[in-house]
Amino acid sequence: MTESDLPVVQLTPGRWGDPAHTVELPAAAAEALKHLGVRRPAAAAVDPVERPGPGADVEQLLTDLLGPEHVKTDLATRWAHTRGYSTPDLLRHRAGDTSDMPDAVVYPGSHDDVQELLTACDEHGIAVVPYAGGTSVVGGLAPSRRFVAIDLRRLDQLTELDEISRTVRLQAGVRGTAAEALLAKNGYTLGHFPQSYEGASIGGYAATRSSGQSSAGYGRFDEMVVGLTVATPRGTIEVGRAPMSAAGPDLRQLFLGSEGALGIITSVVVRIRPRPAERSFEGWRFDTFDQGLAAIRRLAQDGPLPTVLRLSDEAETAVNLADPDVLGGAGAGGVLAIVGFDGPANPKTAAVLSAAGGQSLGEGPGETWRQGRYRAPYLRDPLLNEGALVETLETAGFWSKLPELKTAVTEALVGSLSEQGTPPLVLCHVSHVYETGASLYFTVVSAQTDEPVGQWRKAKSTASEAIARAGGTITHHHGVGTDHRDAYATEVGPLAIESLQAVKRVLDPNGILNPGILLP
Amino acid sequence: MTESDLPVVQLTPGRWGDPAHTVELPAAAAEALKHLGVRRPAAAAVDPVERPGPGADVEQLLTDLLGPEHVKTDLATRWAHTRGYSTPDLLRHRAGDTSDMPDAVVYPGSHDDVQELLTACDEHGIAVVPYAGGTSVVGGLAPSRRFVAIDLRRLDQLTELDEISRTVRLQAGVRGTAAEALLAKNGYTLGHFPQSYEGASIGGYAATRSSGQSSAGYGRFDEMVVGLTVATPRGTIEVGRAPMSAAGPDLRQLFLGSEGALGIITSVVVRIRPRPAERSFEGWRFDTFDQGLAAIRRLAQDGPLPTVLRLSDEAETAVNLADPDVLGGAGAGGVLAIVGFDGPANPKTAAVLSAAGGQSLGEGPGETWRQGRYRAPYLRDPLLNEGALVETLETAGFWSKLPELKTAVTEALVGSLSEQGTPPLVLCHVSHVYETGASLYFTVVSAQTDEPVGQWRKAKSTASEAIARAGGTITHHHGVGTDHRDAYATEVGPLAIESLQAVKRVLDPNGILNPGILLP
Repeated sequence: MTESDLPVVQLTPGRWGDPAHTVELPAAAAEALKHLGVRRPAAAAVDPVERPGPGADVEQLLTDLLGPEHVKTDLATRWAHTRGYSTPDLLRHRAGDTSDMPDAVVYPGSHDDVQELLTACDEHGIAVVPYAGGTSVVGGLAPSRRFVAIDLRRLDQLTELDEISRTVRLQAGVRGTAAEALLAKNGYTLGHFPQSYEGASIGGYAATRSSGQSSAGYGRFDEMVVGLTVATPRGTIEVGRAPMSAAGPDLRQLFLGSEGALGIITSVVVRIRPRPAERSFEGWRFDTFDQGLAAIRRLAQDGPLPTVLRLSDEAETAVNLADPDVLGGAGAGGVLAIVGFDGPANPKTAAVLSAAGGQSLGEGPGETWRQGRYRAPYLRDPLLNEGALVETLETAGFWSKLPELKTAVTEALVGSLSEQGTPPLVLCHVSHVYETGASLYFTVVSAQTDEPVGQWRKAKSTASEAIARAGGTITHHHGVGTDHRDAYATEVGPLAIESLQAVKRVLDPNGILNPGILLP
Repeated sequence: MTESDLPVVQLTPGRWGDPAHTVELPAAAAEALKHLGVRRPAAAAVDPVERPGPGADVEQLLTDLLGPEHVKTDLATRWAHTRGYSTPDLLRHRAGDTSDMPDAVVYPGSHDDVQELLTACDEHGIAVVPYAGGTSVVGGLAPSRRFVAIDLRRLDQLTELDEISRTVRLQAGVRGTAAEALLAKNGYTLGHFPQSYEGASIGGYAATRSSGQSSAGYGRFDEMVVGLTVATPRGTIEVGRAPMSAAGPDLRQLFLGSEGALGIITSVVVRIRPRPAERSFEGWRFDTFDQGLAAIRRLAQDGPLPTVLRLSDEAETAVNLADPDVLGGAGAGGVLAIVGFDGPANPKTAAVLSAAGGQSLGEGPGETWRQGRYRAPYLRDPLLNEGALVETLETAGFWSKLPELKTAVTEALVGSLSEQGTPPLVLCHVSHVYETGASLYFTVVSAQTDEPVGQWRKAKSTASEAIARAGGTITHHHGVGTDHRDAYATEVGPLAIESLQAVKRVLDPNGILNPGILLP
C-alpha cells in the first residue's frame, strides 16, 4: 500500500487517528512501563457536559450565510471539534472538559463562503477558528474566547493543474491522503508526509509550516508553496506571482506559519513532482549518535541526500515502543538511521554513510519503519490508558549547537519529571536536515501523577527554557498555538511581536481570528 | 583571475564600476547604433551645484556620535553618494542634478554606532538612507525628503565563522569581492556573483533580495541567509535561531527585501560552501529560444542542474554588444546558453541538453562569457556618450506564463519607444531558474530623445503594465526602490501594503528610514 492509497479518514475526537487503526499496547511495552512506575489509573473517561451554543441570533446569521445544513450546534459535532491532539488535549478530553468547545461548527463550501463568513463575523464580533484536520499538538484550536469553528472539509478540491510549471492549486480542506490520491491520477506527488498525514490538511500544513518525513528530498511544506489565497476580515489577499521575487518582503512567508491569526488560507499553489515508481527504505547502524550525526551532516552539506533521512539516538533505538520485536534493532549500543529513496537507492549516499562509519542493515528496518511511519501517535491512547504520560516536543538549531541543545532538553525533562517523582524515559531523533543545521524530536514517557496536565506543563516549560538558553527555536514543525506562545514571544522579541500584532490589527481589526493563538 | 582575486573597488560616482575597467565602445557597436538612429548629443556633463548641508546642529549631533572624521559634508563626498546606477540616475548625474543629494554622509563603525545613530536621528526627525555599494538600479537611494546617507563601508568584517554549521556572520558593508576574499582564506565561498559583484555589498544583497549568476547552484541570496541583525529606530532585532522554524511567520523574510525601509541590516549570518577547485563554463546552441527554454526547464525540474544556467534569446545571441567579435556566436538563427559548473562539468547535464536538441559549443563561448560577466554595465557610459539610451529591466513568472510574459514586455517596449520615434532593440535572457518558473532579463537600446529620462519613464511604465497583465512580478532581483513602488503596490494589493506600513510604523514611528522607498 502506498501513501496515496491510504483512505481519507475522519479522526476520532479525543483519540488520535483513523478509528480503523486502533492500536493495542504490546504486552512487552506494558511490562516495560512498570519500570517507570506507571500504574493504571482508576478514573475512566468522563462524558462532556453541555455548554451554551451561539445563541439564536448568531445561529440565524450563520444559517442565512451558509444554509441550515452547513451549520451545526449539536454537542457531538462541537465536541468533535474541540482542541487538537496534544497529550494535554487528550487528557482534557478524557476529563470531559468542554471549556474550549466551539459554540457552533460551520462548513463553508468555497473561498467566497469563507470571505463572507469573515466579513459577517467581523461585523458581529464573533471569533472564529479555522479547522480542517484538527491535528494541532500545540493548542492551536483553543482560542482565548468563545468561538465558531470553521470546518474547511468542503474545500477539498484540486482546482488548477499546471503541468508545465509543475504546480497545483489545492484547497485548504484537502487532506494529505486526498492530495496524494488526487495527484496520483496525473502521475504526480506532493512528497509531503508528516506523521499527521492521515488526518492533517493542506491549509494546516501551510498555516503551521509543516515538515514531512520526506523533507530531505522534498523540503518543508513552506518551501513547496509558491502562492496562497487568504481570506481576512478586511478582504482577500493573493500572494505569489513567481517562484521568487525581489518585490519587497516575501509575503507568502508572512501567512505561512500565521496559524489562522492573520487570515484563513483557503487555497495554496504548491510545487509538485513526478510520482516515483518505487520508494525504498534502508536501515543503517552507527556506533553512537554523535557518529551518526556527523554522517548525516556530511550528507546534508555535501550530498547526495536521500529522500528520507532520520537518526535515532541510543535510547530511541533501544526502545522502539511501536514494535518491541525489533528492540535494539541496530545492535547493542548502536543507533539506527533510516535512509529512504524515491526511486532506487543511490550508491553514492551509501558510500558517504559507510565512509562515516555506518553499516547497512538492509531493507528490513527500513520496511519496519515505513509500515509504522504514521503509527506512533496511535500509541498515546493505550499508553494513557495504562497510566503513562507520553508526549513529544521538538526544536531545531544549527549543527554546532545540536549536541548542547540535545543535552539541555534531555536534562530539563529528566530533571523536571524526576523532581515530580516520575523519572522519565527520553528518546530523541533527528528527522529534518539542512545544510546549516537540523531538527531534534523528543519523545518523553513517564508515569502520570495525579495531575498529569500540570505535570506535563511543568516539564514542558522547563524544556522550553532549556531550548531558549541553548539557542534553539521553540518549534521546528509543530507550530506555536497557545502552548508555545510565550516562548515564541521571548524567542523573537517584543519588536517582532509588536510588528505582527500591527499586521493583525490591519487585517483583523476586531481580533476575531483565532484570538490568543500565536500572538499575545 | 578568480572571483575572489578581484579587488574591492569604490565605484565612480556617475558611472558604473571600477574606474580601472573603463570600457571603450567597440567600433562595430558604434556603427550598429547608427541603424537605431543614435546620434551623439551635443551636451557635455554638467558639474553639480552646491546645495545646503545638514545645518550646524545636525552636523554637531552627528559629530558628537561618531567623531568628526566620520562625518562628511563636502560636496564631492555627498555627490558620490547621490543615487545609484540606473540609466536615469546616470543621466541625472550627467545633468549635474543634485536634487537627491544627501545633506551629509556618516560612517558608523559598528552595529552599536548604527543603533545609536538611528535612535538620535529618530529623536531629531532626520531621515537616513543606508548606503554601501550604491549599486541600486531602481532608485533605492533617492528618498522623498532631505536625508543623511549612512555609509556602511566600515562594517567590513567577517565576525564569526562556524565551520560545523557552515555559516559565517558578515557585516553589512562587506563588498561581494571582499566577502569572497575573506572566505577564500578558509577555503569557502558564498557563491554569490551578481552582475554588481564588484561594487555591491552584503547588506545590499540582503536588503534587495539579490540573485547571482550562480543561482542555479547556490540559490538566491535570500535563500543563503539564516540570520539577520537589524537596527531600527525602536531598537535592535535579531532573527534566525535555526535553519528553519515553525515559530510563526519567517521574520527573516520580512527584513530580506525591506530595502532599508524597516531597519538597517548591520550583519547577516549566511550559509557557506567549500570553495571549488575549478569553475568551468560551456556554451550550448539551441535552434530557437523556445527549444532552449524547454531544455533548461527540464534541468530545473528534473536535474541535474549546473551552477550557472543562462539562455539568451535570438536577438541577444546575435547582438553581443560587449564583444562584437562573437556576433552570432551560436550560429545563424540559433540561441546561446551558458552552462557553468563549480567543479568538473556533469555529463548528465550535457546528456539532458543534448536530448533536448542542444549542441555543445565547447568552452570558448563559456570563457568569453566568464571574462565579460561583470562588464556589461560598463558599456552604458560609452553608449550614453554616443547618444544611445540603454537600460535593463527584469521580471519572473511561472514556466507556463513565460512565453506570454516575454512577448508582452517586448511588445510594450517596442511599442512605447517606437511611438516616441526611437524604435529599440530589445534583447532578453533567462538567468535564474526554479522548479516552477524562471526570470526574464531584458536589455533595451534605442536612440535618445531630447528628454531621455522621460523617454525611459514612459517605456518602463508601459513595460511594467505589461508585466502586471501577463502575471509576472515587477522585479526578480533588482528590488523595488522608488522606480517600482507603484507597480509593487498594485502587485501585492492595498491590504499587503497597509500591513507593511503598519510594521513600519512600529519599527520606524517617525518615518525616518528611507522615506518613500518601497512603501508609499
